[in-house]
Amino acid sequence: MLEIERLSTTQPDFGDRLKALTDWDDGATHGVEAAVAEILTAVREQGDAALLHYSERLDGLAVESVASLEVDLARCQAALEALDSADREALETAAARVREYHLHQRQSDWEKREADGTRLGQQVRPLERVGIYVPGGKAAYPSSVLMNAIPAHVAGVDEIIMVAPAPGGEIAPMVLAAAAVAGVDRLFLLGGAQAVAALAYGTETVPAVDKIVGPGNAYVAEAKRRVFGHVGIDMVAGPSEILIICDGQTDPEWIAMDLFSQAEHDEDARALLVCPEARYLDDVQAAMERLLPEMERSEIIRASLARRGALICVRDLAEAADVANAIAPEHLELSVVEPERLASAIHHAGAIFLGRHTPEALGDYCAGPSHVLPTSRTARFASPLGVYDFCKTTSLVHCTPEGAAVLGPVASRLARAEGLTAHARSAEYRFSGGDEADR
Amino acid sequence: MLEIERLSTTQPDFGDRLKALTDWDDGATHGVEAAVAEILTAVREQGDAALLHYSERLDGLAVESVASLEVDLARCQAALEALDSADREALETAAARVREYHLHQRQSDWEKREADGTRLGQQVRPLERVGIYVPGGKAAYPSSVLMNAIPAHVAGVDEIIMVAPAPGGEIAPMVLAAAAVAGVDRLFLLGGAQAVAALAYGTETVPAVDKIVGPGNAYVAEAKRRVFGHVGIDMVAGPSEILIICDGQTDPEWIAMDLFSQAEHDEDARALLVCPEARYLDDVQAAMERLLPEMERSEIIRASLARRGALICVRDLAEAADVANAIAPEHLELSVVEPERLASAIHHAGAIFLGRHTPEALGDYCAGPSHVLPTSRTARFASPLGVYDFCKTTSLVHCTPEGAAVLGPVASRLARAEGLTAHARSAEYRFSGGDEADR
Repeated sequence: MLEIERLSTTQPDFGDRLKALTDWDDGATHGVEAAVAEILTAVREQGDAALLHYSERLDGLAVESVASLEVDLARCQAALEALDSADREALETAAARVREYHLHQRQSDWEKREADGTRLGQQVRPLERVGIYVPGGKAAYPSSVLMNAIPAHVAGVDEIIMVAPAPGGEIAPMVLAAAAVAGVDRLFLLGGAQAVAALAYGTETVPAVDKIVGPGNAYVAEAKRRVFGHVGIDMVAGPSEILIICDGQTDPEWIAMDLFSQAEHDEDARALLVCPEARYLDDVQAAMERLLPEMERSEIIRASLARRGALICVRDLAEAADVANAIAPEHLELSVVEPERLASAIHHAGAIFLGRHTPEALGDYCAGPSHVLPTSRTARFASPLGVYDFCKTTSLVHCTPEGAAVLGPVASRLARAEGLTAHARSAEYRFSGGDEADR
Repeated sequence: MLEIERLSTTQPDFGDRLKALTDWDDGATHGVEAAVAEILTAVREQGDAALLHYSERLDGLAVESVASLEVDLARCQAALEALDSADREALETAAARVREYHLHQRQSDWEKREADGTRLGQQVRPLERVGIYVPGGKAAYPSSVLMNAIPAHVAGVDEIIMVAPAPGGEIAPMVLAAAAVAGVDRLFLLGGAQAVAALAYGTETVPAVDKIVGPGNAYVAEAKRRVFGHVGIDMVAGPSEILIICDGQTDPEWIAMDLFSQAEHDEDARALLVCPEARYLDDVQAAMERLLPEMERSEIIRASLARRGALICVRDLAEAADVANAIAPEHLELSVVEPERLASAIHHAGAIFLGRHTPEALGDYCAGPSHVLPTSRTARFASPLGVYDFCKTTSLVHCTPEGAAVLGPVASRLARAEGLTAHARSAEYRFSGGDEADR
């Protein structure tokens, strides 16, 4: 028997129940905070020595030097060449599509010239060196290598440093192959808060980067939050989640499997289905019960659906959109007859998968957009990982003497109103040679 | 006698001396961390009651209700109408220019259609509700109201909530007027970590926002760092800074005053001048000594220059660019004969002011770009506050059955390599109706 919550918007306490189901405390516990603070300080102060200590203690990886934790790019290339040809083709097809999609995100410099010759604009430059955190451990995710590194590569980042935990020193050949395909420049078998610390502060062996991206566990998330400011970070990631809106006309087994594909990640993953037809929710639930015993990861799926899953009955699709906007899901599937129309009512989602033939899984691997997406309602303000995460802009202002004569009096007036007279006089020199300073 | 460090790139320990001068510990002290953690928890749990408590304790503002800390928009409009007409005109001219500049930053949705009808794209939407922190206290900064709120307004944000500390309940009429000009929707006289907490979590009276922007003191910075993830934040700001590169041909008094305009902010502000001519550095130093006694904020300027200022002699302008790139200054002035050429060698800066007639002060008030810029070397990875800070994107994928038949096998192959068979089967249903699932 499969356990999953059933909700309906007609329940008087629906709002509270939905909130209880979707609440996720993004704050780290005191235990995590203290452990991470200690690790960051140790790596900042002791460099490689601290890295070796934590790699042995936390990853069971006892080595002589951090240099021996670096994987040669030749080994990555060899792993690619040793792949089964179908695996290699799949990896390269996915990489080519992700690259092609991200080419559309590149931004250009711009400049405008005013009548008096004054020029204003903005220049866009890639970051010089970035760190990519690729989760490892129990599961190996070559797709995450592509989804993090390719947008950086398209942006033109000089040096992409990948870190991945390798408990006991093991790393999947497909992850190495993905690093070769995605254009990773250096790879260290490091994970956890210590890997984040090494990238943020640099050690004798690991170079300091300008920004760290990629999802990780609670320790990684807390470490990223703490080094933010010293380096850039993309986001503080929570568990993965999907919301499916279905009109009741999609094969229930398809939808059941889509929910499973989210639930199989881990016990904290969240899979929600919203539909105006209660009967259809029954059909999907029956399909899940039928399919669950066949699944390799059935215990994880069962636990995740019981803890965090829900089948939600709504009055109509407009109300389904309201539920989606309240949740701001990382992934949103619109398995309905007119998905574009429904999409126009969605304000908050990391990625929208439109139509019955677009399961999230296609986006996870090869449709094009990065699968690194805002979780835990952060789609209210955050965007998918993209080329823009690996670029930064600089404002440009070039005043002619004529332009300075127009802008100077405005600046001077406002500066004096703020009591900042050096500002005022600095502006005044440019239009009066400083006479104004004595007024 | 004015005290300011003199450096030269010919000194053997120049690198270390520059680093010592420019190091800024972005981490909060334990005292600040603990105080902020307590305030955030109190406001999250007790709402308005905690806000009243901290406003009284920290801002000396004893009121009956948080509602009485809200300033009516009519009062802002009245403040605008009561301004001296030259002040009003300056404020409105600045606002119009800032608005015009930011119109160029608006981004569009895009979509591409593949041969098999599959569509990929990206939609851009404004954030719904944002919080703008405007520092107050000793100085009132109407320009900061414009520079934070106008980019949000141009982005199309539904509701802009401004908070500003008002010790003893006082707030400058010009700040109120700026709120009216900039399109602020609601204004609360709240400051410090408690204001950040109120915006992040919401209270009975203050609505929760999606993102909080704007600079503040160490408590505000630490509070923003801690609520990041729950809401978006722009950056964790450090003290303001300027680097001027001069070829020795600008009137030394102009450059002296430009350095003062940075130094007058506060004792932590940093003003640096780089020039290939040692004689010119002498001239600027003499000009500073001559001008300092005239300055209203001479004590702050003196302290700031002594603690954090420097005159740096370089071999040539190419080396000056290297120094600038190492520092990644918030503001960079290029007071040289061919500023565009030198600008092309600059990789890291928040804003570049080109030419002898473009002092930073023009950018601070009215040139167009926001004066909220990345400080403390974060220009390596961060951008000026802009319209992009108030928008977020959603990835869009819409596969036709033909497209799913192409992508499905790729996704299935990679998913199985990752051991995620529910992902694989979800993809397989779309091209084989599920038969593949049994292979």
